[in-house]
Amino acid sequence: MINFKGVIKTSGALLFIEGFFMFISLLVSLIYQGNDILPLLISTIVVFVVGAVAFFGVRKVNMEFGKREGYIIVSMTWFIYSLFGALPFFIGGHIPTYTDAFFETMSGFTTTGASILNDIEAMPHGLLFWRSTSQWMGGMGMIVLSLAILPFLGIGGMQLFIAEVPGPTPDKLHPRIKETAKRLWAIYSIFTFSEVILLMLGGMSLFDAVNHSLTTMATGGYSTKQASVAYWDSPYIQYVITLFMFLAGCNFTLSYFALHLQFKKVWQNEEFRYYLGFILAATLLITVTLVGQNYANSDIEKSFRDAIFQVISIITTTGFATADYEAWGIFLLVVMFTIMFLGGSAGSTGGGMKIIRVLLLLKNSALEFRRLIHPNAIIPVRYNKRAVESEIITNVLAFIVFYMLIFMTASAIMATMVNDFDTAVGSVIACLGNIGPGIGDVGPTENFANIPAPGKWILSFLMLMGRLELFTVLILFSRSFWKR
Amino acid sequence: MINFKGVIKTSGALLFIEGFFMFISLLVSLIYQGNDILPLLISTIVVFVVGAVAFFGVRKVNMEFGKREGYIIVSMTWFIYSLFGALPFFIGGHIPTYTDAFFETMSGFTTTGASILNDIEAMPHGLLFWRSTSQWMGGMGMIVLSLAILPFLGIGGMQLFIAEVPGPTPDKLHPRIKETAKRLWAIYSIFTFSEVILLMLGGMSLFDAVNHSLTTMATGGYSTKQASVAYWDSPYIQYVITLFMFLAGCNFTLSYFALHLQFKKVWQNEEFRYYLGFILAATLLITVTLVGQNYANSDIEKSFRDAIFQVISIITTTGFATADYEAWGIFLLVVMFTIMFLGGSAGSTGGGMKIIRVLLLLKNSALEFRRLIHPNAIIPVRYNKRAVESEIITNVLAFIVFYMLIFMTASAIMATMVNDFDTAVGSVIACLGNIGPGIGDVGPTENFANIPAPGKWILSFLMLMGRLELFTVLILFSRSFWKR
Repeated sequence: MINFKGVIKTSGALLFIEGFFMFISLLVSLIYQGNDILPLLISTIVVFVVGAVAFFGVRKVNMEFGKREGYIIVSMTWFIYSLFGALPFFIGGHIPTYTDAFFETMSGFTTTGASILNDIEAMPHGLLFWRSTSQWMGGMGMIVLSLAILPFLGIGGMQLFIAEVPGPTPDKLHPRIKETAKRLWAIYSIFTFSEVILLMLGGMSLFDAVNHSLTTMATGGYSTKQASVAYWDSPYIQYVITLFMFLAGCNFTLSYFALHLQFKKVWQNEEFRYYLGFILAATLLITVTLVGQNYANSDIEKSFRDAIFQVISIITTTGFATADYEAWGIFLLVVMFTIMFLGGSAGSTGGGMKIIRVLLLLKNSALEFRRLIHPNAIIPVRYNKRAVESEIITNVLAFIVFYMLIFMTASAIMATMVNDFDTAVGSVIACLGNIGPGIGDVGPTENFANIPAPGKWILSFLMLMGRLELFTVLILFSRSFWKR
Repeated sequence: MINFKGVIKTSGALLFIEGFFMFISLLVSLIYQGNDILPLLISTIVVFVVGAVAFFGVRKVNMEFGKREGYIIVSMTWFIYSLFGALPFFIGGHIPTYTDAFFETMSGFTTTGASILNDIEAMPHGLLFWRSTSQWMGGMGMIVLSLAILPFLGIGGMQLFIAEVPGPTPDKLHPRIKETAKRLWAIYSIFTFSEVILLMLGGMSLFDAVNHSLTTMATGGYSTKQASVAYWDSPYIQYVITLFMFLAGCNFTLSYFALHLQFKKVWQNEEFRYYLGFILAATLLITVTLVGQNYANSDIEKSFRDAIFQVISIITTTGFATADYEAWGIFLLVVMFTIMFLGGSAGSTGGGMKIIRVLLLLKNSALEFRRLIHPNAIIPVRYNKRAVESEIITNVLAFIVFYMLIFMTASAIMATMVNDFDTAVGSVIACLGNIGPGIGDVGPTENFANIPAPGKWILSFLMLMGRLELFTVLILFSRSFWKR
């Protein structure tokens, strides 16, 4: 029997956290005296009331959770957060349709960064801050946050953690999940704060610096400007954001080691080395090609800066833009499209398939030649100098297959709603990979406003599946989950 | 030490087989008295002379082969066949550049069916017949043919068979590889002959019937008409070709059982059931959509006929066309693009990834939910009611990864040479999957003539890799192959 009472009580508690952050956005709107005070006030009250009903309404609850409850709570929470999180945009008519408001909010929590806004600067400060906050919460994960601060989630905590952070090789910073969650959120907060300071030193206003730091560390990509980071024509600001996007795409466990000066542990991590390698290789390739094309009047620094910024923005799935890579020619477009699939490191806030999965796949494939020549030898994949269990390889295989299946099915469905093949494929990969801008009509200089409403709901669902790394959501639709 | 002497002697013997079939094309050209008599005569002599030098030139040869020799001989033979097979087209100037002649020939032997000819009807009969013959030989495989007829290949035969027919679960019709090869070629010939008779009963000329039968059973797709099968506006002829394309995409081992009236064995084969299921599902989906679009003046029979013909033509990777599916709208285009990846059954003449690989992947993925809920249970994939060894699953994984890697890398390279994204991606999948027509500028109503020369060589290499199911070619580039 699934412990539904415990599920409801936990969801209620989690809504309090959403209400708290909505309240902070309300304070921001009060400071700037925008026309979003009332919508944020009403939404905050609604969230707290619903949360209270759910939390105090169920009694005699056993708070022990198994795997099933973990998957249900995590999937449901993300969905409910978006349902209520859309209210501030919708109530005041700042986003006129609920579909669009929901899309924008789901895109926020999942750190996708795909937007339907045609005039970002017209939004009041409180809503812009709420938009950025949604990404920041979703980046490290609302469940992980709740594990750090809610006192009563001890027993089922591990199951929740696994369901929200489902990398193929989980690493824990501490035997107790609560301590792990605390450390992760602490590093996340330290990085965010540091970026605010550095951006302000570059001349960015406090409001813009805070918003961009929240969405950089989440690899979210929401900006307060329609032109995204290209608005600031400052190499310093662009390099600062490049650096923090890079950090956000690293495994936060490694950042923890780095902050404790254990650099050897960082370098020993194979995923980190490949993450770095992919970035450097792609940046070099793109810089050289751009310089060869006399890009930006043959300004080599500018070519390099745009290349590394866009490469890290895409590979970490942040989605900030300083340049229109669709204008870089078809060859570089294919390069960008390819790294869109990669994604950040496991245990980072980046989306995509994650480097480690790609790495395990490549290693397994390279070994196949040896296996063909020596069919009787058992030749396991090695990662970080240890043999990888075959269960992990088949799990990665299943992940890739679902990823491709969802990618193809969703592309076929989206193809019935948009104008061309590129847009269908580009919108699906941008949302499933939590990237934000795609190719075609949803490229870096355009947005998702013109996608028909059913398409927006499908893309929202893709964002959710992508953020929770497929299984946490898909398992709810499997027969074996509900059996017995 | 690799037995190079044996490799050379075997290649020489294999060239005799090519020379024999070239000689038959010469007879055809003599009957029709075309301007291709001299080119075919010269080519035949060249092939026999080179073959004789290689075969009789090496002495004191040990004809025992290991795996390595198997891979070398098979990859090399396919390459050499195309090198010499291009001569008849090139010598007489019927195809003015050697690059184009090589592309056309490699496309023939690999049964891809991608063509550079802008006016097929202008070609003389002998060359058209040679073009169709190349597909027929490549369909069941030149090596398998040689195993059936050459007397001295006994010991190394198994290694050669594995290298040319590298399905994930090999099935043999007889403990002796020579007997297996004989039976396979016998069924292949029986089917081809039956199709000739049935097509002639529908009013097709002997020449056209023979050519189309050769290329149908090979799932090759070369036609004697520029308009392909659409030239014959006869439902009977189109249904006959549909039927034989379907048979060509079935595992020939199953056809052997069917011809011996062991239908139960056929139905028990899961791959066959899924092959049938995919075809029926796609045909139904496309027919309904076409009827909904008032296709062909709402002629339901014509909609169904075009749908099933194109579905089977694409899934078996034959590439015959009775309709321009690029005009069916973007949704059906994505459907067609998706089934392009599937391919025929293992042990068929069809290309693509093969149904069995997709099936094993899907099964493994579906089981992952049960594994997530019961992490301590060992839950193997089951195929044909038997547990599948995990080695086979990791092999399939490696195959898929290489397929995707090659697909992406080649698309990026082709993108530098063609006009748009669709053409780059479409030409790569059409050649790697041995399909023939793709999407974009190489769609079913166009051809590969305008691809730049370096692109044609790359695509030729993709065809070869696709036909030999990647590993046989790729292994030659791996370090472990040449070590010790």
